[in-house]
Amino acid sequence: MKIAILIRHGESDINVKGILSDTIDNNMLTEKGMRQAEHAAAELKGIDIKNFYSSPIKRAFDTAQIIADSFNKDVVTDQRLIEIGLGKARGRKANEFTNGLYSGHITGKIREDLEMEKWDSLQKRVVEAIASREGINVYVTHSDPIRAAISYFLEMGEEETYGLSIKNASMTVIDVEIGRILTLGAISMTDSVRKYLNIQ
Amino acid sequence: MKIAILIRHGESDINVKGILSDTIDNNMLTEKGMRQAEHAAAELKGIDIKNFYSSPIKRAFDTAQIIADSFNKDVVTDQRLIEIGLGKARGRKANEFTNGLYSGHITGKIREDLEMEKWDSLQKRVVEAIASREGINVYVTHSDPIRAAISYFLEMGEEETYGLSIKNASMTVIDVEIGRILTLGAISMTDSVRKYLNIQ
Repeated sequence: MKIAILIRHGESDINVKGILSDTIDNNMLTEKGMRQAEHAAAELKGIDIKNFYSSPIKRAFDTAQIIADSFNKDVVTDQRLIEIGLGKARGRKANEFTNGLYSGHITGKIREDLEMEKWDSLQKRVVEAIASREGINVYVTHSDPIRAAISYFLEMGEEETYGLSIKNASMTVIDVEIGRILTLGAISMTDSVRKYLNIQ
Repeated sequence: MKIAILIRHGESDINVKGILSDTIDNNMLTEKGMRQAEHAAAELKGIDIKNFYSSPIKRAFDTAQIIADSFNKDVVTDQRLIEIGLGKARGRKANEFTNGLYSGHITGKIREDLEMEKWDSLQKRVVEAIASREGINVYVTHSDPIRAAISYFLEMGEEETYGLSIKNASMTVIDVEIGRILTLGAISMTDSVRKYLNIQ
C-alpha cells in the first residue's frame, strides 16, 4: 500500500501579498496559516500515518511541524517537494502574467518565456517522492507540485488542470499504487476516504 | 463517441457581488463576461461541435449564444443543466457559510442545513444530460453542476472536490463514453486535447 496525503502549506505572509517565492527563505505562516495547519491535523486524526515529509521551504516545513507534532512525529525534508522553479516569475505577482480575463495560475506558453521549471520535470520529481515510500505518508509541499502530481495521475498537462485551486493546508489524497485520486484539495477527511485508508 | 465540453457561464453582475442565484432571473453578463465567452469561442474554433445546450438561466444562455453564434448554430436549453438548487443559500454570499479559514465553496454538512439540492441528485441530472447525446456537444452551465459531473467520473463526493475552482467560461472536457476527463476547468484548448477530439 502506498498512499500519499499531499498537503499545501498554510497561508504565509507572501501569500497574503500575492508574491511568488521558490527560495528556502523565511516567509512565516500567518496566524490564519497556523490555524489552517491545526485544522488539517485535526482532520487527519485517527489515520495511521507512517511518516511526515516536507519541502525544505520554511512555510511548508512549519506547516508540517504543526501537523507532525500532533502525531508526536518528526518531519523529514525532501528536496523533491520544493516549490516549482519560478524563473523570472520569482518575487513577482501571479496576476502580472494573466490576460486580464482570468486571475489564477500562470498558465501556458508564458511559463516557458519566464523560464519556469518544466511541468514534466516537476511531475517527475514529485511523483518519485511519493512513489518511493510504503504506507500512508504525509507530504507537505506547494500548489504547483500538488497540481503536477494530480495532472500526472489524470494524464493531463499543466493547462488542462487550470481549474484546480489547491488551497492552503488542503489535502489531496492519492493511492499511488493504483493511481487513484481520492480527493482534490479537500479541507475535510470524509468517512468514505477514512474507510478507504483504514481498510488498506 | 460522446464528448461533453462543459463550459461555465461568463462573469455576471451577481458574480461580481458574490451573490448566489439559481433562478432564471435576468442577471446580465458583465463586459468581461462577454469577452470570456468570446475567448472560449475562439479556443473551440476548428472543433467539430454538433450542438450547443444551455442552462435556461440567462447568464448561461447568453454565454452559450455568444459561443454558438460563432459556429452559426442555435442554443437548445436543457433544464438538467440549471444551477444547483440553493435552498436557503439563495441570494446570500458563499463566504457567509465558510469557517473563516477558507473562502470558496459552501462545503460539507452545512449544505444539508441550507436545504441545498443533494449532490447525487445534481450529479444524476447533469450526467444524464451529457450522456444522452452522441458527438461532441457543448453544455453551458454553472460551477457546481460542472464540479458534480467531474466528481461523478472521479468517483468522489462534494467535499472531496473542494479544490476544483471552475472559473467563468472555462472548459471541462469529458469523454463520456469511457469516463475519461481531459481537462479540469481549462481556459485553453491544447494541441493534445484537439488531437484527441479530432481523431475521435
